[in-house]
Amino acid sequence: MIDPEFNRVAIIGLGLIGGSLAAGIRQQGIARTLIAWDADDLSLSTGRDLGIIDEVADDVASATAGADLVILCVPVKAMKAVLRQIEPCDQIITDVGSVKTPFLNEACEVFGDVPAKLIPGHPIAGSERHGVTAADPNLFARHRVILTPADNADDDAVGRVELLWQGLGAETIRMSAEHHDDVLAQTSHLPHLLAYALVDTLSSGGDSLEVFQYAAGGFRDFSRIAASDPTMWSDIFQANRKPLLEILDRYMAELGKLRALVSEEDGDAMKEVFIRAKAARDHFSSIDRSRNA
Amino acid sequence: MIDPEFNRVAIIGLGLIGGSLAAGIRQQGIARTLIAWDADDLSLSTGRDLGIIDEVADDVASATAGADLVILCVPVKAMKAVLRQIEPCDQIITDVGSVKTPFLNEACEVFGDVPAKLIPGHPIAGSERHGVTAADPNLFARHRVILTPADNADDDAVGRVELLWQGLGAETIRMSAEHHDDVLAQTSHLPHLLAYALVDTLSSGGDSLEVFQYAAGGFRDFSRIAASDPTMWSDIFQANRKPLLEILDRYMAELGKLRALVSEEDGDAMKEVFIRAKAARDHFSSIDRSRNA
Repeated sequence: MIDPEFNRVAIIGLGLIGGSLAAGIRQQGIARTLIAWDADDLSLSTGRDLGIIDEVADDVASATAGADLVILCVPVKAMKAVLRQIEPCDQIITDVGSVKTPFLNEACEVFGDVPAKLIPGHPIAGSERHGVTAADPNLFARHRVILTPADNADDDAVGRVELLWQGLGAETIRMSAEHHDDVLAQTSHLPHLLAYALVDTLSSGGDSLEVFQYAAGGFRDFSRIAASDPTMWSDIFQANRKPLLEILDRYMAELGKLRALVSEEDGDAMKEVFIRAKAARDHFSSIDRSRNA
Repeated sequence: MIDPEFNRVAIIGLGLIGGSLAAGIRQQGIARTLIAWDADDLSLSTGRDLGIIDEVADDVASATAGADLVILCVPVKAMKAVLRQIEPCDQIITDVGSVKTPFLNEACEVFGDVPAKLIPGHPIAGSERHGVTAADPNLFARHRVILTPADNADDDAVGRVELLWQGLGAETIRMSAEHHDDVLAQTSHLPHLLAYALVDTLSSGGDSLEVFQYAAGGFRDFSRIAASDPTMWSDIFQANRKPLLEILDRYMAELGKLRALVSEEDGDAMKEVFIRAKAARDHFSSIDRSRNA
Protein backbone atom coordinates (compact mmCIF):
# COMPACT_ATOMS: atom_id res chain seq x y z
CA MET A 1 0.00 0.00 0.00
CA ILE A 2 1.24 3.47 -0.93
CA ASP A 3 1.65 5.89 1.98
CA PRO A 4 -1.12 8.47 2.00
CA GLU A 5 -0.11 11.96 0.81
CA PHE A 6 -1.32 13.49 4.08
CA ASN A 7 -1.47 12.22 7.64
CA ARG A 8 -4.31 14.28 9.08
CA VAL A 9 -6.60 16.43 6.91
CA ALA A 10 -8.99 18.91 8.54
CA ILE A 11 -12.03 19.99 6.57
CA ILE A 12 -13.65 23.18 7.86
CA GLY A 13 -17.20 23.40 6.54
CA LEU A 14 -18.82 20.09 5.60
CA GLY A 15 -21.29 21.04 2.88
CA LEU A 16 -21.40 19.87 -0.75
CA ILE A 17 -17.79 20.90 -1.50
CA GLY A 18 -16.27 19.94 1.87
CA GLY A 19 -18.22 16.68 1.89
CA SER A 20 -17.21 15.85 -1.68
CA LEU A 21 -13.57 16.56 -0.83
CA ALA A 22 -13.81 14.27 2.20
CA ALA A 23 -15.49 11.53 0.15
CA GLY A 24 -12.90 11.82 -2.64
CA ILE A 25 -9.91 11.93 -0.25
CA ARG A 26 -11.32 8.89 1.53
CA GLN A 27 -11.94 6.99 -1.71
CA GLN A 28 -8.46 7.74 -3.08
CA GLY A 29 -6.67 7.05 0.19
CA ILE A 30 -5.10 10.52 0.15
CA ALA A 31 -5.22 10.97 3.96
CA ARG A 32 -4.69 8.69 6.94
CA THR A 33 -7.28 10.53 9.06
CA LEU A 34 -10.07 12.97 8.15
CA ILE A 35 -11.39 15.37 10.78
CA ALA A 36 -14.10 17.93 10.15
CA TRP A 37 -15.75 20.92 11.75
CA ASP A 38 -18.96 22.63 10.71
CA ALA A 39 -21.19 25.25 12.34
CA ASP A 40 -24.00 22.73 11.88
CA ASP A 41 -23.77 19.63 14.10
CA LEU A 42 -26.13 17.67 11.88
CA SER A 43 -23.76 18.00 8.90
CA LEU A 44 -20.96 16.55 11.02
CA SER A 45 -22.97 13.61 12.34
CA THR A 46 -24.26 12.94 8.82
CA GLY A 47 -20.68 13.03 7.50
CA ARG A 48 -19.64 10.49 10.12
CA ASP A 49 -22.68 8.30 9.41
CA LEU A 50 -21.86 8.40 5.70
CA GLY A 51 -18.35 7.24 6.58
CA ILE A 52 -16.62 10.10 4.78
CA ILE A 53 -14.93 11.52 7.91
CA ASP A 54 -13.27 9.83 10.89
CA GLU A 55 -13.51 12.49 13.55
CA VAL A 56 -15.74 15.38 14.49
CA ALA A 57 -14.10 18.47 16.01
CA ASP A 58 -15.66 20.73 18.63
CA ASP A 59 -14.13 23.89 17.15
CA VAL A 60 -11.89 25.16 14.38
CA ALA A 61 -8.86 25.41 16.66
CA SER A 62 -8.92 21.77 17.69
CA ALA A 63 -9.74 20.56 14.16
CA THR A 64 -6.76 22.37 12.67
CA ALA A 65 -4.21 22.02 15.49
CA GLY A 66 -2.70 18.66 14.61
CA ALA A 67 -3.51 18.64 10.89
CA ASP A 68 -0.90 18.72 8.16
CA LEU A 69 -3.50 19.95 5.66
CA VAL A 70 -6.45 22.28 6.39
CA ILE A 71 -9.09 22.82 3.69
CA LEU A 72 -11.43 25.74 4.28
CA CYS A 73 -14.83 25.06 2.70
CA VAL A 74 -16.95 27.65 4.49
CA PRO A 75 -18.81 30.42 2.63
CA VAL A 76 -16.68 33.34 1.40
CA LYS A 77 -18.09 35.61 4.11
CA ALA A 78 -17.15 33.20 6.93
CA MET A 79 -13.50 32.77 5.87
CA LYS A 80 -12.02 35.55 8.00
CA ALA A 81 -13.70 34.39 11.21
CA VAL A 82 -12.38 30.89 10.57
CA LEU A 83 -8.83 32.09 9.83
CA ARG A 84 -8.84 33.90 13.19
CA GLN A 85 -9.38 30.59 14.99
CA ILE A 86 -6.46 28.81 13.36
CA GLU A 87 -3.27 28.62 15.43
CA PRO A 88 -0.61 29.01 12.72
CA CYS A 89 2.02 26.30 12.88
CA ASP A 90 3.26 24.07 10.09
CA GLN A 91 -0.04 23.10 8.42
CA ILE A 92 -0.68 23.69 4.74
CA ILE A 93 -3.87 25.73 4.51
CA THR A 94 -5.96 25.92 1.35
CA ASP A 95 -9.53 26.93 0.55
CA VAL A 96 -12.18 26.52 -2.13
CA GLY A 97 -13.66 30.03 -2.19
CA SER A 98 -14.90 31.62 -5.42
CA VAL A 99 -12.99 34.89 -4.83
CA LYS A 100 -9.26 34.97 -4.13
CA THR A 101 -7.92 38.52 -3.59
CA PRO A 102 -10.20 39.20 -0.60
CA PHE A 103 -9.14 35.87 0.92
CA LEU A 104 -5.44 36.78 0.65
CA ASN A 105 -6.19 40.22 2.11
CA GLU A 106 -8.05 38.67 5.02
CA ALA A 107 -5.17 36.27 5.67
CA CYS A 108 -2.83 39.29 5.75
CA GLU A 109 -5.06 41.05 8.26
CA VAL A 110 -5.37 37.99 10.49
CA PHE A 111 -1.78 36.72 10.34
CA GLY A 112 0.07 40.00 9.67
CA ASP A 113 1.32 38.53 6.37
CA VAL A 114 0.23 35.76 3.99
CA PRO A 115 1.65 32.55 5.53
CA ALA A 116 3.98 30.80 3.07
CA LYS A 117 1.95 27.60 3.38
CA LEU A 118 -1.41 29.27 2.70
CA ILE A 119 -2.25 28.24 -0.87
CA PRO A 120 -5.60 29.64 -2.05
CA GLY A 121 -7.58 27.44 -4.43
CA HIS A 122 -10.84 27.38 -6.37
CA PRO A 123 -12.33 24.27 -7.98
CA ILE A 124 -14.41 25.26 -11.04
CA ALA A 125 -17.13 22.73 -10.36
CA GLY A 126 -20.66 23.97 -10.05
CA SER A 127 -23.71 22.18 -8.80
CA GLU A 128 -27.14 23.37 -7.78
CA ARG A 129 -27.25 20.70 -5.09
CA HIS A 130 -25.94 21.43 -1.63
CA GLY A 131 -25.28 19.91 1.75
CA VAL A 132 -23.13 16.99 2.82
CA THR A 133 -25.84 14.51 1.79
CA ALA A 134 -25.09 15.46 -1.84
CA ALA A 135 -21.35 14.75 -1.36
CA ASP A 136 -19.84 13.13 -4.45
CA PRO A 137 -16.26 11.76 -4.49
CA ASN A 138 -16.13 12.39 -8.25
CA LEU A 139 -17.40 16.00 -8.16
CA PHE A 140 -13.99 17.38 -9.18
CA ALA A 141 -12.99 14.74 -11.73
CA ARG A 142 -12.19 16.31 -15.12
CA HIS A 143 -12.76 19.79 -13.67
CA ARG A 144 -10.23 22.58 -13.36
CA VAL A 145 -8.89 23.87 -10.08
CA ILE A 146 -7.21 27.27 -10.05
CA LEU A 147 -4.52 27.85 -7.40
CA THR A 148 -3.44 31.41 -6.67
CA PRO A 149 -0.31 31.16 -4.50
CA ALA A 150 1.15 34.49 -3.33
CA ASP A 151 4.72 35.46 -4.32
CA ASN A 152 6.13 34.15 -1.04
CA ALA A 153 4.34 30.80 -1.29
CA ASP A 154 6.19 27.66 -0.28
CA ASP A 155 6.86 25.61 -3.44
CA ASP A 156 6.49 22.30 -1.69
CA ALA A 157 3.11 23.35 -0.23
CA VAL A 158 1.87 24.41 -3.68
CA GLY A 159 3.00 21.09 -5.12
CA ARG A 160 1.25 19.09 -2.41
CA VAL A 161 -2.04 20.97 -2.88
CA GLU A 162 -1.72 20.26 -6.60
CA LEU A 163 -1.22 16.57 -5.86
CA LEU A 164 -4.34 16.58 -3.69
CA TRP A 165 -6.53 17.90 -6.53
CA GLN A 166 -4.88 15.76 -9.18
CA GLY A 167 -5.52 12.78 -6.93
CA LEU A 168 -9.22 13.64 -7.15
CA GLY A 169 -9.05 13.67 -10.95
CA ALA A 170 -8.90 17.45 -11.38
CA GLU A 171 -6.55 19.53 -13.54
CA THR A 172 -4.68 22.27 -11.65
CA ILE A 173 -3.69 25.69 -13.02
CA ARG A 174 -1.73 28.47 -11.30
CA MET A 175 -2.44 32.17 -11.77
CA SER A 176 -2.42 35.35 -9.70
CA ALA A 177 -5.34 36.03 -7.38
CA GLU A 178 -6.14 39.26 -9.27
CA HIS A 179 -6.26 37.46 -12.60
CA HIS A 180 -8.43 34.71 -11.13
CA ASP A 181 -10.92 37.27 -9.83
CA ASP A 182 -11.05 39.02 -13.23
CA VAL A 183 -11.56 35.78 -15.14
CA LEU A 184 -14.23 34.50 -12.77
CA ALA A 185 -16.05 37.85 -12.75
CA GLN A 186 -16.38 37.42 -16.51
CA THR A 187 -17.15 33.75 -16.92
CA SER A 188 -19.11 33.00 -13.76
CA HIS A 189 -20.16 35.99 -11.66
CA LEU A 190 -21.49 38.13 -14.52
CA PRO A 191 -23.53 35.28 -16.09
CA HIS A 192 -25.09 34.55 -12.71
CA LEU A 193 -26.01 38.21 -12.21
CA LEU A 194 -27.51 38.36 -15.73
CA ALA A 195 -29.55 35.21 -15.12
CA TYR A 196 -30.95 36.51 -11.83
CA ALA A 197 -31.84 39.79 -13.55
CA LEU A 198 -33.55 38.00 -16.45
CA VAL A 199 -35.67 35.68 -14.34
CA ASP A 200 -36.64 38.54 -12.03
CA THR A 201 -37.53 40.82 -14.96
CA LEU A 202 -39.73 38.19 -16.57
CA SER A 203 -41.39 37.07 -13.35
CA SER A 204 -42.33 40.63 -12.41
CA GLY A 205 -44.19 41.05 -15.70
CA GLY A 206 -47.61 40.21 -14.24
CA ASP A 207 -48.36 37.08 -16.24
CA SER A 208 -45.18 35.40 -15.06
CA LEU A 209 -46.50 31.87 -14.76
CA GLU A 210 -47.73 32.00 -18.31
CA VAL A 211 -44.51 33.40 -19.76
CA PHE A 212 -42.39 30.69 -18.17
CA GLN A 213 -44.51 28.00 -19.82
CA TYR A 214 -43.26 28.96 -23.26
CA ALA A 215 -39.61 29.10 -22.36
CA ALA A 216 -37.58 27.27 -24.97
CA GLY A 217 -34.04 25.87 -24.91
CA GLY A 218 -31.99 29.04 -24.53
CA PHE A 219 -34.00 30.48 -21.71
CA ARG A 220 -34.19 27.19 -19.86
CA ASP A 221 -30.44 26.73 -19.91
CA PHE A 222 -29.85 30.28 -18.79
CA SER A 223 -32.50 30.49 -16.11
CA ARG A 224 -31.19 27.30 -14.51
CA ILE A 225 -28.31 29.27 -13.00
CA ALA A 226 -30.80 31.63 -11.32
CA ALA A 227 -31.70 28.66 -9.11
CA SER A 228 -28.30 28.93 -7.39
CA ASP A 229 -27.99 29.85 -3.72
CA PRO A 230 -29.01 33.53 -3.19
CA THR A 231 -26.86 34.10 -0.08
CA MET A 232 -23.76 32.58 -1.61
CA TRP A 233 -24.04 34.69 -4.74
CA SER A 234 -24.87 37.88 -2.93
CA ASP A 235 -21.68 37.30 -0.89
CA ILE A 236 -19.58 36.53 -3.97
CA PHE A 237 -20.83 39.63 -5.81
CA GLN A 238 -19.92 41.83 -2.85
CA ALA A 239 -16.53 40.19 -2.35
CA ASN A 240 -15.61 40.53 -6.03
CA ARG A 241 -17.34 43.89 -6.46
CA LYS A 242 -14.68 45.75 -8.43
CA PRO A 243 -13.95 43.19 -11.21
CA LEU A 244 -17.68 42.42 -11.44
CA LEU A 245 -18.69 46.07 -11.85
CA GLU A 246 -15.97 46.53 -14.45
CA ILE A 247 -17.21 43.71 -16.68
CA LEU A 248 -20.85 44.57 -15.95
CA ASP A 249 -20.23 48.09 -17.23
CA ARG A 250 -18.64 46.74 -20.40
CA TYR A 251 -21.60 44.40 -20.83
CA MET A 252 -24.17 47.15 -20.32
CA ALA A 253 -22.37 49.34 -22.86
CA GLU A 254 -22.45 46.46 -25.39
CA LEU A 255 -26.14 45.91 -24.69
CA GLY A 256 -26.78 49.61 -25.22
CA LYS A 257 -25.03 49.40 -28.62
CA LEU A 258 -27.10 46.37 -29.63
CA ARG A 259 -30.25 48.17 -28.47
CA ALA A 260 -29.42 51.02 -30.84
CA LEU A 261 -28.87 48.59 -33.74
CA VAL A 262 -32.23 46.89 -33.11
CA SER A 263 -33.96 50.25 -32.79
CA GLU A 264 -32.38 51.51 -36.03
CA GLU A 265 -33.06 48.15 -37.73
CA ASP A 266 -29.41 48.00 -38.72
CA GLY A 267 -29.39 44.34 -39.70
CA ASP A 268 -25.90 44.38 -41.21
CA ALA A 269 -24.22 45.78 -38.09
CA MET A 270 -26.20 43.37 -35.91
CA LYS A 271 -25.19 40.44 -38.06
CA GLU A 272 -21.54 41.47 -37.81
CA VAL A 273 -21.68 41.32 -33.99
CA PHE A 274 -23.53 37.98 -34.00
CA ILE A 275 -21.13 36.42 -36.51
CA ARG A 276 -18.19 37.50 -34.31
CA ALA A 277 -19.91 36.09 -31.19
CA LYS A 278 -20.79 32.84 -32.93
CA ALA A 279 -17.18 32.42 -34.12
CA ALA A 280 -15.88 32.97 -30.57
CA ARG A 281 -18.39 30.53 -29.13
CA ASP A 282 -17.71 27.91 -31.83
CA HIS A 283 -13.99 28.26 -31.18
CA PHE A 284 -14.51 27.90 -27.44
CA SER A 285 -16.72 24.88 -27.91
CA SER A 286 -14.12 23.17 -30.13
CA ILE A 287 -11.43 23.72 -27.44
CA ASP A 288 -13.88 22.38 -24.91
CA ARG A 289 -14.60 19.23 -26.89
CA SER A 290 -10.93 18.49 -27.43
CA ARG A 291 -10.32 18.93 -23.67
CA ASN A 292 -13.05 16.48 -22.77
CA ALA A 293 -12.15 13.99 -25.49
CA MET B 1 -55.35 1.95 -43.39
CA ILE B 2 -56.65 5.29 -42.16
CA ASP B 3 -57.10 7.96 -44.83
CA PRO B 4 -54.37 10.56 -44.61
CA GLU B 5 -55.41 13.91 -43.10
CA PHE B 6 -54.22 15.75 -46.22
CA ASN B 7 -54.07 14.86 -49.88
CA ARG B 8 -51.27 17.08 -51.11
CA VAL B 9 -49.00 19.03 -48.76
CA ALA B 10 -46.64 21.68 -50.14
CA ILE B 11 -43.60 22.60 -48.10
CA ILE B 12 -42.02 25.90 -49.06
CA GLY B 13 -38.47 26.04 -47.73
CA LEU B 14 -36.80 22.68 -47.13
CA GLY B 15 -34.33 23.36 -44.35
CA LEU B 16 -34.20 21.85 -40.85
CA ILE B 17 -37.80 22.76 -39.99
CA GLY B 18 -39.33 22.12 -43.43
CA GLY B 19 -37.36 18.89 -43.78
CA SER B 20 -38.34 17.70 -40.29
CA LEU B 21 -41.99 18.47 -41.06
CA ALA B 22 -41.74 16.49 -44.31
CA ALA B 23 -40.03 13.57 -42.54
CA GLY B 24 -42.62 13.56 -39.73
CA ILE B 25 -45.61 13.87 -42.08
CA ARG B 26 -44.19 11.03 -44.15
CA GLN B 27 -43.52 8.83 -41.13
CA GLN B 28 -47.00 9.43 -39.67
CA GLY B 29 -48.80 9.03 -42.99
CA ILE B 30 -50.41 12.46 -42.61
CA ALA B 31 -50.30 13.28 -46.35
CA ARG B 32 -50.82 11.30 -49.54
CA THR B 33 -48.27 13.37 -51.48
CA LEU B 34 -45.51 15.75 -50.34
CA ILE B 35 -44.22 18.41 -52.72
CA ALA B 36 -41.52 20.92 -51.85
CA TRP B 37 -39.93 24.07 -53.16
CA ASP B 38 -36.73 25.69 -51.99
CA ALA B 39 -34.51 28.48 -53.36
CA ASP B 40 -31.67 25.96 -53.16
CA ASP B 41 -31.90 23.08 -55.66
CA LEU B 42 -29.50 20.94 -53.64
CA SER B 43 -31.86 20.96 -50.64
CA LEU B 44 -34.66 19.70 -52.87
CA SER B 45 -32.64 16.91 -54.50
CA THR B 46 -31.32 15.92 -51.06
CA GLY B 47 -34.89 15.83 -49.73
CA ARG B 48 -35.91 13.57 -52.56
CA ASP B 49 -32.85 11.35 -52.11
CA LEU B 50 -33.66 11.07 -48.39
CA GLY B 51 -37.16 9.96 -49.37
CA ILE B 52 -38.90 12.63 -47.29
CA ILE B 53 -40.63 14.34 -50.26
CA ASP B 54 -42.28 12.92 -53.38
CA GLU B 55 -42.07 15.81 -55.78
CA VAL B 56 -39.88 18.81 -56.44
CA ALA B 57 -41.57 22.01 -57.64
CA ASP B 58 -40.04 24.54 -60.03
CA ASP B 59 -41.59 27.51 -58.26
CA VAL B 60 -43.83 28.48 -55.34
CA ALA B 61 -46.88 28.93 -57.59
CA SER B 62 -46.79 25.41 -58.98
CA ALA B 63 -45.93 23.90 -55.57
CA THR B 64 -48.93 25.51 -53.91
CA ALA B 65 -51.50 25.39 -56.74
CA GLY B 66 -52.96 21.94 -56.18
CA ALA B 67 -52.13 21.58 -52.49
CA ASP B 68 -54.72 21.38 -49.74
CA LEU B 69 -52.11 22.38 -47.15
CA VAL B 70 -49.21 24.78 -47.67
CA ILE B 71 -46.55 25.11 -44.94
CA LEU B 72 -44.23 28.09 -45.24
CA CYS B 73 -40.83 27.30 -43.74
CA VAL B 74 -38.72 30.06 -45.28
CA PRO B 75 -36.89 32.65 -43.15
CA VAL B 76 -39.03 35.42 -41.63
CA LYS B 77 -37.64 37.94 -44.12
CA ALA B 78 -38.58 35.83 -47.16
CA MET B 79 -42.23 35.25 -46.15
CA LYS B 80 -43.74 38.21 -47.98
CA ALA B 81 -42.08 37.40 -51.31
CA VAL B 82 -43.35 33.82 -51.00
CA LEU B 83 -46.91 34.91 -50.14
CA ARG B 84 -46.94 37.05 -53.31
CA GLN B 85 -46.38 33.95 -55.43
CA ILE B 86 -49.30 31.98 -53.99
CA GLU B 87 -52.49 31.96 -56.04
CA PRO B 88 -55.13 32.07 -53.30
CA CYS B 89 -57.75 29.35 -53.72
CA ASP B 90 -58.96 26.85 -51.15
CA GLN B 91 -55.62 25.75 -49.58
CA ILE B 92 -54.98 25.99 -45.89
CA ILE B 93 -51.80 28.03 -45.45
CA THR B 94 -49.70 27.92 -42.31
CA ASP B 95 -46.13 28.89 -41.42
CA VAL B 96 -43.46 28.24 -38.80
CA GLY B 97 -42.02 31.76 -38.40
CA SER B 98 -40.76 33.03 -35.04
CA VAL B 99 -42.71 36.31 -35.28
CA LYS B 100 -46.44 36.42 -35.96
CA THR B 101 -47.81 40.00 -36.15
CA PRO B 102 -45.54 41.00 -39.06
CA PHE B 103 -46.57 37.82 -40.91
CA LEU B 104 -50.28 38.67 -40.54
CA ASN B 105 -49.59 42.24 -41.65
CA GLU B 106 -47.73 41.00 -44.72
CA ALA B 107 -50.59 38.64 -45.60
CA CYS B 108 -52.96 41.63 -45.37
CA GLU B 109 -50.75 43.65 -47.70
CA VAL B 110 -50.43 40.81 -50.22
CA PHE B 111 -54.03 39.50 -50.18
CA GLY B 112 -55.89 42.68 -49.18
CA ASP B 113 -57.10 40.88 -46.04
CA VAL B 114 -55.97 37.90 -43.95
CA PRO B 115 -57.37 34.86 -45.79
CA ALA B 116 -59.69 32.85 -43.50
CA LYS B 117 -57.63 29.72 -44.13
CA LEU B 118 -54.29 31.34 -43.30
CA ILE B 119 -53.40 29.98 -39.85
CA PRO B 120 -50.06 31.29 -38.55
CA GLY B 121 -48.06 28.89 -36.39
CA HIS B 122 -44.79 28.68 -34.50
CA PRO B 123 -43.26 25.44 -33.20
CA ILE B 124 -41.19 26.16 -30.05
CA ALA B 125 -38.46 23.73 -30.98
CA GLY B 126 -34.94 25.03 -31.19
CA SER B 127 -31.87 23.40 -32.60
CA GLU B 128 -28.46 24.68 -33.50
CA ARG B 129 -28.35 22.30 -36.45
CA HIS B 130 -29.67 23.36 -39.81
CA GLY B 131 -30.33 22.18 -43.31
CA VAL B 132 -32.45 19.35 -44.69
CA THR B 133 -29.73 16.81 -43.91
CA ALA B 134 -30.47 17.40 -40.19
CA ALA B 135 -34.20 16.69 -40.74
CA ASP B 136 -35.68 14.77 -37.82
CA PRO B 137 -39.24 13.37 -37.90
CA ASN B 138 -39.36 13.64 -34.08
CA LEU B 139 -38.13 17.24 -33.84
CA PHE B 140 -41.54 18.48 -32.67
CA ALA B 141 -42.51 15.61 -30.39
CA ARG B 142 -43.31 16.84 -26.86
CA HIS B 143 -42.77 20.44 -27.96
CA ARG B 144 -45.33 23.22 -28.00
CA VAL B 145 -46.69 24.80 -31.14
CA ILE B 146 -48.41 28.17 -30.83
CA LEU B 147 -51.10 28.96 -33.40
CA THR B 148 -52.22 32.58 -33.78
CA PRO B 149 -55.35 32.52 -35.96
CA ALA B 150 -56.84 35.94 -36.78
CA ASP B 151 -60.43 36.75 -35.69
CA ASN B 152 -61.85 35.76 -39.07
CA ALA B 153 -60.01 32.41 -39.15
CA ASP B 154 -61.84 29.37 -40.47
CA ASP B 155 -62.49 27.02 -37.50
CA ASP B 156 -62.09 23.90 -39.59
CA ALA B 157 -58.74 25.12 -40.95
CA VAL B 158 -57.47 25.85 -37.42
CA GLY B 159 -58.57 22.38 -36.32
CA ARG B 160 -56.81 20.69 -39.20
CA VAL B 161 -53.55 22.54 -38.56
CA GLU B 162 -53.84 21.48 -34.91
CA LEU B 163 -54.31 17.87 -36.02
CA LEU B 164 -51.20 18.13 -38.19
CA TRP B 165 -49.01 19.19 -35.24
CA GLN B 166 -50.64 16.78 -32.82
CA GLY B 167 -49.98 14.04 -35.34
CA LEU B 168 -46.28 14.92 -35.04
CA GLY B 169 -46.44 14.57 -31.27
CA ALA B 170 -46.62 18.29 -30.45
CA GLU B 171 -48.98 20.12 -28.11
CA THR B 172 -50.87 23.02 -29.71
CA ILE B 173 -51.91 26.28 -28.02
CA ARG B 174 -53.89 29.19 -29.46
CA MET B 175 -53.21 32.83 -28.64
CA SER B 176 -53.26 36.20 -30.38
CA ALA B 177 -50.35 37.14 -32.63
CA GLU B 178 -49.59 40.17 -30.43
CA HIS B 179 -49.44 38.05 -27.29
CA HIS B 180 -47.24 35.49 -29.02
CA ASP B 181 -44.78 38.18 -30.06
CA ASP B 182 -44.66 39.57 -26.50
CA VAL B 183 -44.12 36.16 -24.93
CA LEU B 184 -41.43 35.16 -27.41
CA ALA B 185 -39.64 38.50 -27.09
CA GLN B 186 -39.32 37.70 -23.39
CA THR B 187 -38.50 33.99 -23.36
CA SER B 188 -36.56 33.58 -26.57
CA HIS B 189 -35.52 36.78 -28.37
CA LEU B 190 -34.21 38.64 -25.30
CA PRO B 191 -32.14 35.65 -24.03
CA HIS B 192 -30.58 35.28 -27.47
CA LEU B 193 -29.68 38.97 -27.59
CA LEU B 194 -28.18 38.77 -24.07
CA ALA B 195 -26.12 35.71 -24.99
CA TYR B 196 -24.72 37.34 -28.14
CA ALA B 197 -23.87 40.45 -26.09
CA LEU B 198 -22.15 38.39 -23.39
CA VAL B 199 -20.00 36.31 -25.72
CA ASP B 200 -19.07 39.39 -27.73
CA THR B 201 -18.18 41.37 -24.59
CA LEU B 202 -15.97 38.60 -23.25
CA SER B 203 -14.30 37.82 -26.56
CA SER B 204 -13.39 41.46 -27.14
CA GLY B 205 -11.52 41.58 -23.82
CA GLY B 206 -8.10 40.92 -25.34
CA ASP B 207 -7.35 37.59 -23.68
CA SER B 208 -10.51 36.00 -25.02
CA LEU B 209 -9.14 32.55 -25.68
CA GLU B 210 -7.91 32.32 -22.13
CA VAL B 211 -11.16 33.53 -20.56
CA PHE B 212 -13.25 30.99 -22.42
CA GLN B 213 -11.12 28.17 -21.04
CA TYR B 214 -12.37 28.76 -17.53
CA ALA B 215 -16.03 28.95 -18.41
CA ALA B 216 -18.06 26.86 -16.00
CA GLY B 217 -21.59 25.45 -16.20
CA GLY B 218 -23.65 28.63 -16.24
CA PHE B 219 -21.65 30.37 -18.89
CA ARG B 220 -21.44 27.27 -21.08
CA ASP B 221 -25.20 26.79 -21.10
CA PHE B 222 -25.80 30.43 -21.83
CA SER B 223 -23.15 30.94 -24.47
CA ARG B 224 -24.43 27.92 -26.39
CA ILE B 225 -27.32 30.01 -27.71
CA ALA B 226 -24.85 32.55 -29.12
CA ALA B 227 -23.94 29.81 -31.62
CA SER B 228 -27.34 30.25 -33.31
CA ASP B 229 -27.66 31.53 -36.87
CA PRO B 230 -26.67 35.26 -37.03
CA THR B 231 -28.81 36.12 -40.06
CA MET B 232 -31.91 34.42 -38.71
CA TRP B 233 -31.64 36.20 -35.37
CA SER B 234 -30.84 39.58 -36.85
CA ASP B 235 -34.02 39.18 -38.95
CA ILE B 236 -36.12 38.09 -35.96
CA PHE B 237 -34.89 41.00 -33.82
CA GLN B 238 -35.82 43.46 -36.55
CA ALA B 239 -39.20 41.87 -37.21
CA ASN B 240 -40.11 41.83 -33.51
CA ARG B 241 -38.41 45.12 -32.75
CA LYS B 242 -41.08 46.76 -30.60
CA PRO B 243 -41.79 43.95 -28.09
CA LEU B 244 -38.06 43.18 -27.94
CA LEU B 245 -37.07 46.77 -27.16
CA GLU B 246 -39.79 46.95 -24.53
CA ILE B 247 -38.54 43.94 -22.59
CA LEU B 248 -34.90 44.89 -23.23
CA ASP B 249 -35.53 48.28 -21.61
CA ARG B 250 -37.10 46.60 -18.60
CA TYR B 251 -34.13 44.25 -18.40
CA MET B 252 -31.57 47.05 -18.63
CA ALA B 253 -33.40 48.94 -15.87
CA GLU B 254 -33.29 45.83 -13.66
CA LEU B 255 -29.60 45.38 -14.40
CA GLY B 256 -29.00 49.02 -13.49
CA LYS B 257 -30.74 48.46 -10.13
CA LEU B 258 -28.65 45.36 -9.43
CA ARG B 259 -25.51 47.26 -10.41
CA ALA B 260 -26.35 49.86 -7.75
CA LEU B 261 -26.90 47.16 -5.12
CA VAL B 262 -23.53 45.56 -5.91
CA SER B 263 -21.83 48.94 -5.90
CA GLU B 264 -23.41 49.87 -2.54
CA GLU B 265 -22.71 46.34 -1.18
CA ASP B 266 -26.36 46.08 -0.21
CA GLY B 267 -26.36 42.33 0.37
CA ASP B 268 -29.84 42.19 1.89
CA ALA B 269 -31.53 43.88 -1.07
CA MET B 270 -29.55 41.72 -3.49
CA LYS B 271 -30.53 38.57 -1.65
CA GLU B 272 -34.18 39.61 -1.77
CA VAL B 273 -34.03 39.83 -5.59
CA PHE B 274 -32.16 36.53 -5.92
CA ILE B 275 -34.55 34.71 -3.58
CA ARG B 276 -37.49 35.97 -5.67
CA ALA B 277 -35.77 34.92 -8.91
CA LYS B 278 -34.88 31.50 -7.51
CA ALA B 279 -38.48 30.96 -6.37
CA ALA B 280 -39.79 31.86 -9.85
CA ARG B 281 -37.26 29.60 -11.51
CA ASP B 282 -37.93 26.71 -9.10
CA HIS B 283 -41.66 27.09 -9.71
CA PHE B 284 -41.12 27.11 -13.47
CA SER B 285 -38.89 24.08 -13.31
CA SER B 286 -41.46 22.13 -11.27
CA ILE B 287 -44.15 22.92 -13.90
CA ASP B 288 -41.69 21.87 -16.54
CA ARG B 289 -40.94 18.55 -14.89
CA SER B 290 -44.60 17.70 -14.43
CA ARG B 291 -45.19 18.52 -18.12
CA ASN B 292 -42.43 16.25 -19.29
CA ALA B 293 -43.32 13.46 -16.87
